[in-house]
Amino acid sequence: MQAEIITIGDEILIGQIVDTNSAFISKALNQIGVSVYQITSVQDDREHILKALAEAEENADIILITGGLGPTKDDITKKTIAEYFDDTLIRDEAVLENIRRIWDTYIKKPLIQVNIDQALVPSKATALMNVNGSAPGMWLVRNGKVFVSMPGVPFEMKALMTDEVLPRLRKKFKFPYIEHQTVLTHGIGESALAERIETWEDQLPKFVKLAYLPNLGRVRLRLSAKGMDKAVIQNEIKQQIDLLMPQIEDVFVGFENDGSIEELIGGALEANHQTIATAESCTGGKIAEMFTSHPGASHYFKGSVVTYATETKVKVLGLSEELIEKYSVVSAEVAQAMAERARLLFNTDYAIATTGNAGPDKGDSEAEVGTVFIAIATKQGVLTHEFHFGSHRERVINKAANKALELLHKEILKK
Amino acid sequence: MQAEIITIGDEILIGQIVDTNSAFISKALNQIGVSVYQITSVQDDREHILKALAEAEENADIILITGGLGPTKDDITKKTIAEYFDDTLIRDEAVLENIRRIWDTYIKKPLIQVNIDQALVPSKATALMNVNGSAPGMWLVRNGKVFVSMPGVPFEMKALMTDEVLPRLRKKFKFPYIEHQTVLTHGIGESALAERIETWEDQLPKFVKLAYLPNLGRVRLRLSAKGMDKAVIQNEIKQQIDLLMPQIEDVFVGFENDGSIEELIGGALEANHQTIATAESCTGGKIAEMFTSHPGASHYFKGSVVTYATETKVKVLGLSEELIEKYSVVSAEVAQAMAERARLLFNTDYAIATTGNAGPDKGDSEAEVGTVFIAIATKQGVLTHEFHFGSHRERVINKAANKALELLHKEILKK
Repeated sequence: MQAEIITIGDEILIGQIVDTNSAFISKALNQIGVSVYQITSVQDDREHILKALAEAEENADIILITGGLGPTKDDITKKTIAEYFDDTLIRDEAVLENIRRIWDTYIKKPLIQVNIDQALVPSKATALMNVNGSAPGMWLVRNGKVFVSMPGVPFEMKALMTDEVLPRLRKKFKFPYIEHQTVLTHGIGESALAERIETWEDQLPKFVKLAYLPNLGRVRLRLSAKGMDKAVIQNEIKQQIDLLMPQIEDVFVGFENDGSIEELIGGALEANHQTIATAESCTGGKIAEMFTSHPGASHYFKGSVVTYATETKVKVLGLSEELIEKYSVVSAEVAQAMAERARLLFNTDYAIATTGNAGPDKGDSEAEVGTVFIAIATKQGVLTHEFHFGSHRERVINKAANKALELLHKEILKK
Repeated sequence: MQAEIITIGDEILIGQIVDTNSAFISKALNQIGVSVYQITSVQDDREHILKALAEAEENADIILITGGLGPTKDDITKKTIAEYFDDTLIRDEAVLENIRRIWDTYIKKPLIQVNIDQALVPSKATALMNVNGSAPGMWLVRNGKVFVSMPGVPFEMKALMTDEVLPRLRKKFKFPYIEHQTVLTHGIGESALAERIETWEDQLPKFVKLAYLPNLGRVRLRLSAKGMDKAVIQNEIKQQIDLLMPQIEDVFVGFENDGSIEELIGGALEANHQTIATAESCTGGKIAEMFTSHPGASHYFKGSVVTYATETKVKVLGLSEELIEKYSVVSAEVAQAMAERARLLFNTDYAIATTGNAGPDKGDSEAEVGTVFIAIATKQGVLTHEFHFGSHRERVINKAANKALELLHKEILKK
């Protein structure tokens, strides 16, 4: 039982947007036991859509389509799907009712013809209610194969997948169980890690697949297995991880299923009734943004001072001018003072501080581009580290944020 | 002349990562005049890779492949490409030299066999030097069609595209000119906008394509054209935009090619020698992070206070406790005071403040989830607005950040 995802839209093929829908859909399908064979992105072009549908029908049993359902003339997915199924479009009164409700509640303007036409669906299709927008989902079945068309707006697609598509798929088919367990490591390269765990890798049973995912100083190790007996799969993955752990103890961070590193930290802080704040210079609010993107962050994250201009390190954070003059703004001493001040200012158990030069210019400091000092303040004292993250701005910022979180995580685990 | 992109990796098909490489490659190809016909993501599976290569060779003249070039056993792209070209792998000494240089400079450990094997390339391929990593790019030509294989690590792929692949493609082929101009609008829905500009849309010449891209309260209008005569294309797009502008004056924000809204703001501030700071509650540092993700932000962005816990609004930002008690932490009065205090604290021309409830819980306030107050402080005074952004946390944060930047942009344009 395999699925194919077709994403439709010129904006994908010209690189104007990144297709995030496919990742969401793939993950959701995996969770109910459906493997995705292929993801295909095609233009808003009748012939191309027809060709992609025909190829997907050959390869897969479940074909999920997103995009091209807007009310404007450039969107042709619906009529092309009707053509593919040799079908005509008819008005669905329940869909029209939903559109009226949205317009009355949010838009507060009269419906115009193109809005009303959003209620047209192929006569062979079951309309799936899109409570967040005017384009309905469409569910079509031919020779036992399921085709689902959904709008490309991520928020509308996600609700349709969760509330309509996944429950219907589970009802129609019996799926195997798929498990992915991803182990997060840091501080070791991909090839060194592979060499270290080679004997373990070679003894893995055939049905357990291993993958290495390196990124910005971290390597994720993914174990995947699939089968009809959930208990067997779960047990095998667990045993293999138990065998692996003693070999990677020094580089182990956590499991990806338990969340990102900031979520792991958040969970630990909340369990200990502890709090955190940040004082960010070169990371510019990135670490604060990472913490606060997760629900419940207010339970442990108290705030941040982003001191981008040097003067604000004095005025807002309360560092001494002499200290900055003596050691320069990008220095271990300044990072240390920032972390200490932030911890006191926000009255927290921990504080992270970053100061460095993300480039491309040298800015206020004489430090080489890529130099970053990270300090972690605890009630016991401050630990400061110096790093050189290369010359690529986005990478420097992201590496610094990741590294700061890793250092904090280690510090919390020590307690 | 068309291209196809093939991205290889199980991590894409299980939704563990979002494929951002395709968008970068598509954009880069468009800029030199190459249209992308299709993007296909396939598994780390020999048969599937061979099938995708054969289909791409039928559809396209340029086939760009990323992923599956790591040193570990799960990566099989290189040997599968060699098989597709009926070729064998031979060692490229220049590539090995590059790997040695990287290991000596950064890794500081001896090379192991899997690192040395990264220097193996198909004998028919030209190796493209990857200065940032051990996996080389590979350039192969068959019957006038070009195949390029690149590593999947975005940073390595981007440098290879820019420094090696694009110059070689331009040398080998003569491409037409492609222009995309995207007009940013806000405050009008997709269908209302389409109705308003219908007459203009209907008179567009056939070779100018129009697309509507709605997202989070903004609609982007994209005009695209392609042809051998650059002057004709540019002139036609310019004329059409001149015709359009009077009809959308009240909802126009800017042109996407000029950058994101925070870049437009940054440019205007820098030109006026003005500065900005933020005081963020519900946006949690997101606005600061948006500003500081761009090079040169230090010329106009002075800093931010993220006051996630209510007490920090008093202690760090200096709001009065009475004010917060009287009006509650999510209120127009508190937003206004935050913006005023931030402007004074950071000594800037403008300050943005946000306070609201992003959900999922009500947190420190009685305000409904989705309620956000945004204040823009200038030297003349403070403007405060109330919004209701729904109940989806990520959307509330992003909509609030976007809206704050729109309001600031309008304010700056007034001067």
